[in-house]
Amino acid sequence: MHSDSFLDLCRAAVGPSNVLTDAADKAPYLTDWRRRYTGDALAVLRPGNTDEVAAVMHACHAHRIAVVPQGGNTGLCGGATPAGGDAAARGVVVVSLQRLNRVRQVDPLNNTITVEAGVILQQLQDVAREHGRLFPLSLAAEGSCTIGGNLSTNAGGTAVLRYGNTRELCLGLEVVTARGEVWNGLRGLRKDNTGYDLRDLFIGAEGTLGIITAAVMKLFPAPRARVTALAAVPSPRAALALLAIAQSHASAMLTGFELMSAMCMELVTRHFPQLRYPFAEHHPQVVLLELSDSEGEQHARGIFETMMEAALDAGVVTDAVVAESVQQSRDFWNLREHIPLAQVEEGKNIKHDIAVPISRVADFIETTDALVQDAFPGARMVTFGHLGDGNLHYNVSPPAGVDHDQFLQHQDAINLIVHNSVQAHDGSISAEHGLGQLKVEENRRYKSEVELAMMRAIKQALDPQHLMNPGKVV
Amino acid sequence: MHSDSFLDLCRAAVGPSNVLTDAADKAPYLTDWRRRYTGDALAVLRPGNTDEVAAVMHACHAHRIAVVPQGGNTGLCGGATPAGGDAAARGVVVVSLQRLNRVRQVDPLNNTITVEAGVILQQLQDVAREHGRLFPLSLAAEGSCTIGGNLSTNAGGTAVLRYGNTRELCLGLEVVTARGEVWNGLRGLRKDNTGYDLRDLFIGAEGTLGIITAAVMKLFPAPRARVTALAAVPSPRAALALLAIAQSHASAMLTGFELMSAMCMELVTRHFPQLRYPFAEHHPQVVLLELSDSEGEQHARGIFETMMEAALDAGVVTDAVVAESVQQSRDFWNLREHIPLAQVEEGKNIKHDIAVPISRVADFIETTDALVQDAFPGARMVTFGHLGDGNLHYNVSPPAGVDHDQFLQHQDAINLIVHNSVQAHDGSISAEHGLGQLKVEENRRYKSEVELAMMRAIKQALDPQHLMNPGKVV
Repeated sequence: MHSDSFLDLCRAAVGPSNVLTDAADKAPYLTDWRRRYTGDALAVLRPGNTDEVAAVMHACHAHRIAVVPQGGNTGLCGGATPAGGDAAARGVVVVSLQRLNRVRQVDPLNNTITVEAGVILQQLQDVAREHGRLFPLSLAAEGSCTIGGNLSTNAGGTAVLRYGNTRELCLGLEVVTARGEVWNGLRGLRKDNTGYDLRDLFIGAEGTLGIITAAVMKLFPAPRARVTALAAVPSPRAALALLAIAQSHASAMLTGFELMSAMCMELVTRHFPQLRYPFAEHHPQVVLLELSDSEGEQHARGIFETMMEAALDAGVVTDAVVAESVQQSRDFWNLREHIPLAQVEEGKNIKHDIAVPISRVADFIETTDALVQDAFPGARMVTFGHLGDGNLHYNVSPPAGVDHDQFLQHQDAINLIVHNSVQAHDGSISAEHGLGQLKVEENRRYKSEVELAMMRAIKQALDPQHLMNPGKVV
Repeated sequence: MHSDSFLDLCRAAVGPSNVLTDAADKAPYLTDWRRRYTGDALAVLRPGNTDEVAAVMHACHAHRIAVVPQGGNTGLCGGATPAGGDAAARGVVVVSLQRLNRVRQVDPLNNTITVEAGVILQQLQDVAREHGRLFPLSLAAEGSCTIGGNLSTNAGGTAVLRYGNTRELCLGLEVVTARGEVWNGLRGLRKDNTGYDLRDLFIGAEGTLGIITAAVMKLFPAPRARVTALAAVPSPRAALALLAIAQSHASAMLTGFELMSAMCMELVTRHFPQLRYPFAEHHPQVVLLELSDSEGEQHARGIFETMMEAALDAGVVTDAVVAESVQQSRDFWNLREHIPLAQVEEGKNIKHDIAVPISRVADFIETTDALVQDAFPGARMVTFGHLGDGNLHYNVSPPAGVDHDQFLQHQDAINLIVHNSVQAHDGSISAEHGLGQLKVEENRRYKSEVELAMMRAIKQALDPQHLMNPGKVV
């Protein structure tokens, strides 16, 4: 039988124990961690190295079997879960990269690390630290997401302001193509102009053009100190003014700039009363700032003092606390990191991962809040995010007393209001989470036909049989 | 006649005065500034805005006329000059972007500037400065090269260590496709994951996939001070050790790290005796370091002192001078910038624009010097470059007393030695100048067939009639 001969090829390639066909064995790979997407697949394949990935892809290509690449399965848009119904599932496999988990090389002098796709982000951070280096990518799922997934979704996180997205942290890739060929593009070079930028094409393609199997990532000298501060500001507009002041005083030392609305802090302090909130009262907006200093803590504290004085003088900041210890810095970050958890405690809300030009963030919030209030009076805005990148998690909770599940019926209407406003502010409807299967249709609404046509042409060029991660991105 | 009806379309699109067909009018566009490449073309077209570029491209597409896009015509690899003989020329036009020279928008709060492709790099730097911002791209041709050319070749320069190549400085593009459609990808966003990274595909493609007509470029807060130092080091290996010390002490403040061999300094001081060379004697290697400081000159000087003390203690540096004034910083840069001019005075040599991993620079220089000396005893190595990026201008001059023109007969043999050594050190044969027509063949020698096939597939996808800049890159 067709699928039997295919599975035999796979068993020969990766060993029988790494071809999962039993429903219970497959299950963890077929549902995303938030349990929003469930698909089915003929099998889950677990290759252990690049050659095995190539062998598997070669078999898939020969048998016209579609491939869903998967890393830590922590995505938020269903990009790593098979899409489509049962019929489609007969022609689909999940290829898990988790067994490709070796650190191949650390080169401290070149400030690079070469890792396989299945290496967990936190492990990468740890290895860098052991070599006196920083790998700056940091995000909520870092304990279980893989660098291959980070690359495929061009993950963002909390240090983009200084170090860029995952894209900017990558120098070279190893990729297995849709035809099962290995492209060794594992260059550790800061400059290389010898042809088209294939690397950046595979980054952020969510596995629809090929499978990333390894990467050369940038490292940075570890800062001698990191110091955090919280500043109370009267409005998003004031937060933007504070950003300009902070950048002028701290330049590249400014590694974090996170905005949190009063509603966010109210939820966090209510649901997690054990967290230490340093202000006596709630403020309209709170900003978390982080400085990373190559000199030391005293120097960073000095910069903060000058900066906050300038901000208080300019009327931009109404109150500010600079962390006195590593523990207090940790406490401040805890407030920020508990916002998503507090939202879970509070009940479901309607989430958006958007970006606009930094200069338009305040306009966006004011305009969009008004539009949402107009349509859904009393809706509560849980807005927070990476203001230094213009990236907001713009989440809408039901008015007090309204059932959360019931409110979710308005999801499409609210998405439309928010995304139309994003478009009007020259923004992006997916800043750091990717498109996956969640936003493919929505993306078509906002992208020009010229751009969509180029995307389709590239898909056709690199994956002419459309076997790579069908139903995602394009 | 075929070409007449085409030229009529062009005249209608851009006005008769911007369709140059007279040989004398065309001449400046048909030879590169170093007079190494001369081609011919049916006409030189000078559109004045994006719509005119689109109209011209539409006409070219309809008449199957090939297009050579051109900016400031300062490229070093013949990428902006028509390739091929007279027969080919009947089907080729040069499209000059020089009249697209408007700054469309400056957004200081977003730290972005939107410019048309024909804006001169220096003008971009100046406009940024007027807004209290820095546009960091800086290279020898900045007075005449255009940002469109910088983007198309992914230009490097002296500030890549901190700010990246032109690629890393760009947030969004406007492109006219091979079919004459306008893609508006002029996004000023720090995060955007809504599809394939088309921007980075056009960057560095040297006009072979479409014409870049405008771009959103990143700006940075202007540093309060820039201070330069010169350090004498015994070897390239010691220079690498100094780099690690400097990065540990200065982190992102370190914005320049240039290596210059004794031979470079000897040529510069001999041909330009008016330049102030601060050391009493010649050293095996001299490093130019630059700090950009958001606090001020005193602070930068303090960092330099700590750093140089550590380097002297480690035996990495034998002598060092920190510039005492802006003028002295300028003097130090002058030494660096006069190396290419001193080479011109000295006579032609055989140039290479290569990159290797930073950790392998010393190995590369030692090994390659030995190989060249073995084959051509007495050859003089004029090696300098952006050590912080692993990018060397590895130039070979004839032995003393040997005629320079005669020595150039060995160019192919020396290229082979150098580029094979680059390959053996996992490097790039074109770090910051691109491929143009100079290195297309050479590139095929070193790229894998998998990579070349993907490049051809992308070319086919976006320019199926192969009208864009034929004979370049692929």
